[in-house]
Amino acid sequence: MNFLEERILKEGTVKEGNVLKVDSFLNHQMDIDLLDEIGREFKRRFRSKKINKILTIEASGIGIACLAAYHFDVPVVFAKKTQSINLDGDMYTAEVESFTHRTKNKVIVSKKFLGPKDRVLIIDDFLANGCALRGLIKIAEEAGASVEGIGIAIEKGFQPGGSKIRAMGYDLYSIAIIDSMDSRTKTVRFREQQI
Amino acid sequence: MNFLEERILKEGTVKEGNVLKVDSFLNHQMDIDLLDEIGREFKRRFRSKKINKILTIEASGIGIACLAAYHFDVPVVFAKKTQSINLDGDMYTAEVESFTHRTKNKVIVSKKFLGPKDRVLIIDDFLANGCALRGLIKIAEEAGASVEGIGIAIEKGFQPGGSKIRAMGYDLYSIAIIDSMDSRTKTVRFREQQI
Repeated sequence: MNFLEERILKEGTVKEGNVLKVDSFLNHQMDIDLLDEIGREFKRRFRSKKINKILTIEASGIGIACLAAYHFDVPVVFAKKTQSINLDGDMYTAEVESFTHRTKNKVIVSKKFLGPKDRVLIIDDFLANGCALRGLIKIAEEAGASVEGIGIAIEKGFQPGGSKIRAMGYDLYSIAIIDSMDSRTKTVRFREQQI
Repeated sequence: MNFLEERILKEGTVKEGNVLKVDSFLNHQMDIDLLDEIGREFKRRFRSKKINKILTIEASGIGIACLAAYHFDVPVVFAKKTQSINLDGDMYTAEVESFTHRTKNKVIVSKKFLGPKDRVLIIDDFLANGCALRGLIKIAEEAGASVEGIGIAIEKGFQPGGSKIRAMGYDLYSIAIIDSMDSRTKTVRFREQQI
């Protein structure tokens, strides 16, 4: 079992409706040592790709992306969820539906910060239905950037996002893939992965 | 002139309506080396305080808070802007109005992650009217935590937030304080500060 799977078993809680709460260490309170280890693991996994930018989406992706960026020594661009008066008109947009919040958001990235020279690693904390991720992929490809890899902390392997995105040919790596979880027995089963 | 003031002069742009755009390095695209330097500077300034938690607010505070947390070796808690079905009922709340977005948001912090034992450093990217900051202070004090310091990257010194919060007795440190800016002449004037 890897460091993140161990932490999920130790501190995560399984709630009804396939909700996994990891808010004590990942997406409300953030354990910086853990984020650092996640960043180091993404660097190990995507070392051979010439990543020059990390792309993520607000809000809970930002912490993981920043610590990963520290290991890659590249800038982070985060997609914003609503239109700000501080953003210029020229931006890439995508529609994203949140599994957690059950809301639809427009996400935007300024055209100034993503272009054909960018070799992008997309990072996010969770992958379930893959809607946020497909939005980020759409934005990267519209910008002419190449999506060199996708790094996810926790994938819900029993939801279709991961398999769809792998079928599209993307190099998607999730540090922990949950194959099933049960709120009654409070158990989580992880998929075995080759390192 | 310090490293952040130099960067603002080099890459920031002044827009009408007292808008300073620093989205190429601070709050849309994030220069991780700069965030790291900001974090190191907060550590230098608040070294004598026994900080055990950093509190910030989504979204653009998170990157700075995470790099600062790396220097302090403490966890980050970020206040969330809307109610998520993933959060338990027990939370601290505050109303926050955004200068940039001209919207009102409820911000929330789970009671699990902030309490009387916490010696908090509040971090954010911008301080203008201070509404977000007062929301975070209210939440920290409701939790019984002590606000040991407040670290801001860029303060708009011509708006009332900073002076109000200093008058309340908080140890507020902004790395760059802008005393005036002019969108016509594209100039920014910084307040001189003792290090």
